Amino acid sequence: MKILVLNGPNLNLLGKRQPELYGSVTLQEINERLAAHAEELGVVLEFFQSNHEGELIEKIHGAEGKHAAVVFNPGAYTHYSLALRDAVASVTVPVVEIHLSNIYAREEFRAKSVIAPVAAGQISGLGADSYLLGLSAATAIAKRKKQDR
Amino acid sequence: MKILVLNGPNLNLLGKRQPELYGSVTLQEINERLAAHAEELGVVLEFFQSNHEGELIEKIHGAEGKHAAVVFNPGAYTHYSLALRDAVASVTVPVVEIHLSNIYAREEFRAKSVIAPVAAGQISGLGADSYLLGLSAATAIAKRKKQDR
Amino acid sequence: MKILVLNGPNLNLLGKRQPELYGSVTLQEINERLAAHAEELGVVLEFFQSNHEGELIEKIHGAEGKHAAVVFNPGAYTHYSLALRDAVASVTVPVVEIHLSNIYAREEFRAKSVIAPVAAGQISGLGADSYLLGLSAATAIAKRKKQDR
Amino acid sequence: MKILVLNGPNLNLLGKRQPELYGSVTLQEINERLAAHAEELGVVLEFFQSNHEGELIEKIHGAEGKHAAVVFNPGAYTHYSLALRDAVASVTVPVVEIHLSNIYAREEFRAKSVIAPVAAGQISGLGADSYLLGLSAATAIAKRKKQDR
Amino acid sequence: MKILVLNGPNLNLLGKRQPELYGSVTLQEINERLAAHAEELGVVLEFFQSNHEGELIEKIHGAEGKHAAVVFNPGAYTHYSLALRDAVASVTVPVVEIHLSNIYAREEFRAKSVIAPVAAGQISGLGADSYLLGLSAATAIAKRKKQDR
Amino acid sequence: MKILVLNGPNLNLLGKRQPELYGSVTLQEINERLAAHAEELGVVLEFFQSNHEGELIEKIHGAEGKHAAVVFNPGAYTHYSLALRDAVASVTVPVVEIHLSNIYAREEFRAKSVIAPVAAGQISGLGADSYLLGLSAATAIAKRKKQDR
Amino acid sequence: MKILVLNGPNLNLLGKRQPELYGSVTLQEINERLAAHAEELGVVLEFFQSNHEGELIEKIHGAEGKHAAVVFNPGAYTHYSLALRDAVASVTVPVVEIHLSNIYAREEFRAKSVIAPVAAGQISGLGADSYLLGLSAATAIAKRKKQDR
Amino acid sequence: MKILVLNGPNLNLLGKRQPELYGSVTLQEINERLAAHAEELGVVLEFFQSNHEGELIEKIHGAEGKHAAVVFNPGAYTHYSLALRDAVASVTVPVVEIHLSNIYAREEFRAKSVIAPVAAGQISGLGADSYLLGLSAATAIAKRKKQDR
Amino acid sequence: MKILVLNGPNLNLLGKRQPELYGSVTLQEINERLAAHAEELGVVLEFFQSNHEGELIEKIHGAEGKHAAVVFNPGAYTHYSLALRDAVASVTVPVVEIHLSNIYAREEFRAKSVIAPVAAGQISGLGADSYLLGLSAATAIAKRKKQDR
Amino acid sequence: MKILVLNGPNLNLLGKRQPELYGSVTLQEINERLAAHAEELGVVLEFFQSNHEGELIEKIHGAEGKHAAVVFNPGAYTHYSLALRDAVASVTVPVVEIHLSNIYAREEFRAKSVIAPVAAGQISGLGADSYLLGLSAATAIAKRKKQDR
Amino acid sequence: MKILVLNGPNLNLLGKRQPELYGSVTLQEINERLAAHAEELGVVLEFFQSNHEGELIEKIHGAEGKHAAVVFNPGAYTHYSLALRDAVASVTVPVVEIHLSNIYAREEFRAKSVIAPVAAGQISGLGADSYLLGLSAATAIAKRKKQDR
Amino acid sequence: MKILVLNGPNLNLLGKRQPELYGSVTLQEINERLAAHAEELGVVLEFFQSNHEGELIEKIHGAEGKHAAVVFNPGAYTHYSLALRDAVASVTVPVVEIHLSNIYAREEFRAKSVIAPVAAGQISGLGADSYLLGLSAATAIAKRKKQDR
Repeated sequence: MKILVLNGPNLNLLGKRQPELYGSVTLQEINERLAAHAEELGVVLEFFQSNHEGELIEKIHGAEGKHAAVVFNPGAYTHYSLALRDAVASVTVPVVEIHLSNIYAREEFRAKSVIAPVAAGQISGLGADSYLLGLSAATAIAKRKKQDR
Repeated sequence: MKILVLNGPNLNLLGKRQPELYGSVTLQEINERLAAHAEELGVVLEFFQSNHEGELIEKIHGAEGKHAAVVFNPGAYTHYSLALRDAVASVTVPVVEIHLSNIYAREEFRAKSVIAPVAAGQISGLGADSYLLGLSAATAIAKRKKQDR
Repeated sequence: MKILVLNGPNLNLLGKRQPELYGSVTLQEINERLAAHAEELGVVLEFFQSNHEGELIEKIHGAEGKHAAVVFNPGAYTHYSLALRDAVASVTVPVVEIHLSNIYAREEFRAKSVIAPVAAGQISGLGADSYLLGLSAATAIAKRKKQDR
Repeated sequence: MKILVLNGPNLNLLGKRQPELYGSVTLQEINERLAAHAEELGVVLEFFQSNHEGELIEKIHGAEGKHAAVVFNPGAYTHYSLALRDAVASVTVPVVEIHLSNIYAREEFRAKSVIAPVAAGQISGLGADSYLLGLSAATAIAKRKKQDR
Repeated sequence: MKILVLNGPNLNLLGKRQPELYGSVTLQEINERLAAHAEELGVVLEFFQSNHEGELIEKIHGAEGKHAAVVFNPGAYTHYSLALRDAVASVTVPVVEIHLSNIYAREEFRAKSVIAPVAAGQISGLGADSYLLGLSAATAIAKRKKQDR
Repeated sequence: MKILVLNGPNLNLLGKRQPELYGSVTLQEINERLAAHAEELGVVLEFFQSNHEGELIEKIHGAEGKHAAVVFNPGAYTHYSLALRDAVASVTVPVVEIHLSNIYAREEFRAKSVIAPVAAGQISGLGADSYLLGLSAATAIAKRKKQDR
Repeated sequence: MKILVLNGPNLNLLGKRQPELYGSVTLQEINERLAAHAEELGVVLEFFQSNHEGELIEKIHGAEGKHAAVVFNPGAYTHYSLALRDAVASVTVPVVEIHLSNIYAREEFRAKSVIAPVAAGQISGLGADSYLLGLSAATAIAKRKKQDR
Repeated sequence: MKILVLNGPNLNLLGKRQPELYGSVTLQEINERLAAHAEELGVVLEFFQSNHEGELIEKIHGAEGKHAAVVFNPGAYTHYSLALRDAVASVTVPVVEIHLSNIYAREEFRAKSVIAPVAAGQISGLGADSYLLGLSAATAIAKRKKQDR
Repeated sequence: MKILVLNGPNLNLLGKRQPELYGSVTLQEINERLAAHAEELGVVLEFFQSNHEGELIEKIHGAEGKHAAVVFNPGAYTHYSLALRDAVASVTVPVVEIHLSNIYAREEFRAKSVIAPVAAGQISGLGADSYLLGLSAATAIAKRKKQDR
Repeated sequence: MKILVLNGPNLNLLGKRQPELYGSVTLQEINERLAAHAEELGVVLEFFQSNHEGELIEKIHGAEGKHAAVVFNPGAYTHYSLALRDAVASVTVPVVEIHLSNIYAREEFRAKSVIAPVAAGQISGLGADSYLLGLSAATAIAKRKKQDR
Repeated sequence: MKILVLNGPNLNLLGKRQPELYGSVTLQEINERLAAHAEELGVVLEFFQSNHEGELIEKIHGAEGKHAAVVFNPGAYTHYSLALRDAVASVTVPVVEIHLSNIYAREEFRAKSVIAPVAAGQISGLGADSYLLGLSAATAIAKRKKQDR
Repeated sequence: MKILVLNGPNLNLLGKRQPELYGSVTLQEINERLAAHAEELGVVLEFFQSNHEGELIEKIHGAEGKHAAVVFNPGAYTHYSLALRDAVASVTVPVVEIHLSNIYAREEFRAKSVIAPVAAGQISGLGADSYLLGLSAATAIAKRKKQDR
């Protein structure tokens, strides 16, 4: 069972800039923690980060039939990329939306996710744990889905 | 380490009414799954459900110094109980807000949580898993907090 | 066939205060007129008034399987108690929402009912008659529902 | 004592189109039930339906001094005809506004009635019963008004 | 030089109903005062009142080439009849919008005129004088327009 | 196969007034071009224009069972006539909404159509071609609908 | 009988700047036309223009007991000077608000007058005639008021 | 002369939590200062704090005929409890609303009090002094009221 | 210790106009009551009233280093004078904002103070007592501030 | 004469996903129908689809001087890509905006097109026919433009 | 070539108060830096600061024909003084609006300038450099304007 | 000292299209003027233009540690690209936002910049001078920053 870990714009800088907002853990370190957790859960991970809306859309398209679920941190695209929303809605792969920071405790424009209404669920504000819990959730959903067939 | 699992209005009916929205699992069954998961995590749980805003406020007050964290599903109070928000803000116990259904994919008034800005984090839309992941998150936060001292 | 007549906050003062807004008939007198009308309709009434949101929620929960319908004046909770709305939505007992005064001819915040979208119907502005008509409506709905089974 | 039953735009199609929204009872059948109820109440009914805003305005003007009350379903004019609102406000005849469907449980634009603030009261969502209860209410108001003189 | 005096919905009741809002002068009396004033100004008047939006639209269409100006009290259509606005915009005849009462000192919905942006000017709140001043203004505009050719 | 070409308020003035907005082609000339196009498509046209909301409503009612489709330019009623919207929704005849000018490039109030959500589709901004394309679309829909039976 | 003609900010530039918006007539010329009209009406005028909100407020205070009415063009203060509004409301002298240009056909912020709700009436869009008609209206109101005593 | 000092939700924690917002004085200490001030003013105080909306409503009901005035800090209920507002409006006892912190200098939702429109007056932002000044104000109002009878 | 009592626009008319809104006490009488109260408190008062925004701004600038506190009734400038707000924010002298009438129980535009977020506190609706309580509050704040140094 | 058929994000999935919303016809099949229709019209088509906003912008830039018109389905970029809007506005090539589904009958955010104000026209809701009609419209506009030179 | 440097309310306090917001440079020091820069640019400066809206309006009126350009920091009047906006619009002298602080990174009400739409350009957030760059810009515009004649 | 000059979508067309909005100077010519100005200032420039949001984000990431400042014209991304905003916020390189046209004097959607709150400052409306002044500002900030270390 393969799961895609998808990261949106500016997340390549994680841990290198603005640690007061996002912590000092790098994306590389999160990925390593995810890999360890994946092993426990018995799933295989693919990692992908892009600052390009179009590439993220196509990665979601490509997940169909290839990955059992997606753990997705859309970064700032969360708040306006209706094209990403449509991409998520157009595939049957379940997508768990996650956020490092508590998007409801920051600027008002961050309190609105255009992705959330079409995501399987959302986890926000728990730092790097948001990714680990997101992976647990994605795995659970994917397993239930497999059993349902 | 003790953790409070707090449920707000109408959640006593869980699994008995409107299964198309909230699933057929009862609160009792969720609590049992939580208890099993707590054992794995090495934490002790207290369960409390109330339809009374005042009782929930006082339960949160009482958690200070007694519980290491709270897993809280505020039900419909999520969307307007500023008194509950102030209660959460007034204690140092971390509170993880959770929701069974995806509150961002339902009526517009549900897409706004007045609790979220003062919660440690929020997990939404993952069914009974929201509780289990919320317990994992609450435990992790509580453990880190203990180490920091 | 039993019908619950449920009154929300401040309605215990009916007829005693602000008669220019709500008339001089007391809740006791309305209940007597309702009892007389119930006898004509062949239904039995239970009366309950509370200023506590939680008690009203639980009374609605308790109506399930016990009452054939509810005649409900939610008082000021009409305009913000989403918890009461969820309680009404969570039971299969039909609830007829009624108001003594014309809520559309007063302050703007009264022109919005959060209960109405999940009520069977709404009657507003007809003074004590709102209760009597509400009882007629509730009885009719309950009888049709019984026949449908 | 004469009472006017006034129906606005598209209500001539009642029972013939969109039964999932408005039921399968025709306006003719409602009128017959109203006529039977009127006999019980000892009042005489006049029926009028029009799709023309101007005709409805003039019918309300004409009710003054001729009818003791009006039972009025303004159809979609409910939501924007300020001219009809002014007509209702300009006569002393009491007007009871009624709606077949629950206008608060449909599209958002239907949740606002420009007529309601100048109507005697409003009854909504109770199907054909809305008319019968509206007639009861209108008769009661008219009788009290007569006694007051 | 002919000028059209056009009155919209409910203005046929002027002076007969709600004198606290609109005074006790009837439309007939206003027309007589207008006729006297017209004689002083050397213009000929045509009077027309209708409760029908369509008739008012067509009267404005017909004014083109026949009347030198229009004095128009659109009644409640002021606030929503975009079809009347388009009619006014589609003719080259200048239209002076007038109101008996101060539309800015009443309900909020009356403070917005959809006609005003395409009218030559607006006179509001001066009772029957609004008509007389409107006639003066319309005549002045029409005379200047004639001279300009 | 008969198709109704329905025009709303002020469209009788087409080509005679405000050519900078609507072009210099008259409604008569558009109808002639439509008639020629109808012959090519093998359909028969009926033309109707009215400034009266009520007449347009009734024409739509009357199209049921008589016309296979309607090409409808609602003029300014586009933006507020909920009664026309309900008329369109109440019939099974498909209605193609068309506009000569680009309603999205003019005043803000024109950018909202209350008819569009219940129309089969909308064509806007293409001048007289909007009518011709609307006829093509209406014919295609009607033919597909016929085949489906 | 004395009447105050009061002009607000930037009106000293009238006729000298932006003639495309306000015409080429100067304030001096308007005052001369007003003086001639005043002679016909048998009233005496005082002229005052100021760019200072405070001076305008005090001029209105001073009009009480001294002038029978005020003709007031508040310029841009129309749209935000609640202090001027309170000044107008605090005196019993009737104030007729006038505007040279049609404030409803310009930028959206000009379509709202905070003065209008407390003015006797408003005349807008008729160029220099707005002043002359305003003087007529003010004189008529003042005369009626005198008679009423 | 008896005066009720009424405190809403979370105020039992005063001085114990979030001193950066509310200061370090406890409710007990404020009550002692109030008691001392009451002695100077010659009035007797009753103290009551509750986190339950219903209990606060009933305490206000009970003040009628028993207390000469109420000093009320509604806590977070200030911003949404229309039921408390109705309770305040339903009694003739004057209620002075007070707040420790400046509710206009915090989150936007705190800048709106639904109680204020029916309170005798409001005092905000002066810390514990808000209570003492509120008691002075309440006593003054109560004494004037007594004299007026 | 010197305290400035600052009054904004139209307050020179206090007690002379609109007593139904503001009472019949004049500013002179309030000042005398304030002077008496100041003597009790052991502070010296300076009185200043102006209808000119600029003068009020400069008076606040001048209070720095000269007065220990300001009691300020900004009149209608309360609702829009951001320049006054900046003046208050730019000085370290504490400013207590006061209002005679309950600004939350009047027109909607009065329910918003742009001064309040930068004031030390606000007292509203208590008539002339608002000034006396404001003086008490200002004196208390000034004394505490002096002690803190 | 060459015409560009431009498709935005997610349209590569057409017919493969969510057929209940967009039908089961693939983009390939639409292109074949367009090619056939182009032959009838005597125009040559170029097809381009991209999920990348930047590529779509550059394709529009490149159409200038190369294509006579563009048929453009911007997908979800319709609702927020102001950069695409500026691209369309910056070229003289006419762009006909088309949509498969009725964007006015879906989620509220889809009812707003930021492209429409600068497009030649818009066709929406007619399924694959939207493309064919769009091609007809684009060809007609291009031919007229050519003749005008 | 003479250029006016105009400063609005509270800017006389620059460098003396709130240095955390506006820096510690005084207006006097900025003027000296401006004077030095003016010498380089070959222009002559006049400096004027006022807290009075009316004086600023008249200074702008007076700039016409006397100054080649204006560098204007309107202070808090930026956000509401429509009278100043009209003054700027009424003169042909180009006005460059400048702000010391980044008005888009502070309170929401500061993010809106009513002056900007009629200014030549706006420079914001660059501290004292905003003035120097504003002078460069104003000089460049004035020189180009001179050449154009 | 190296400075990056960054241009967003459609700016490659500068001077070639819509000269009435953006002037006839090409981006190449602006770059040449910038290069000349850079030589005077003693800084080295790198030029980059892209229509791709992702490329602009990455160029900003890359500026960290390489460029001393950025002069950035984000084109239409100004109004919605929160991903670009986050990129600007994530680097310590100061970014001066510039606009050729006065974005506050055009369509309403252009009056809002999501970049401005995190930019060092903003210069708008001064044509090609906006770039030159932006370069001056960026250089000044970069030099001060260097000195501060």
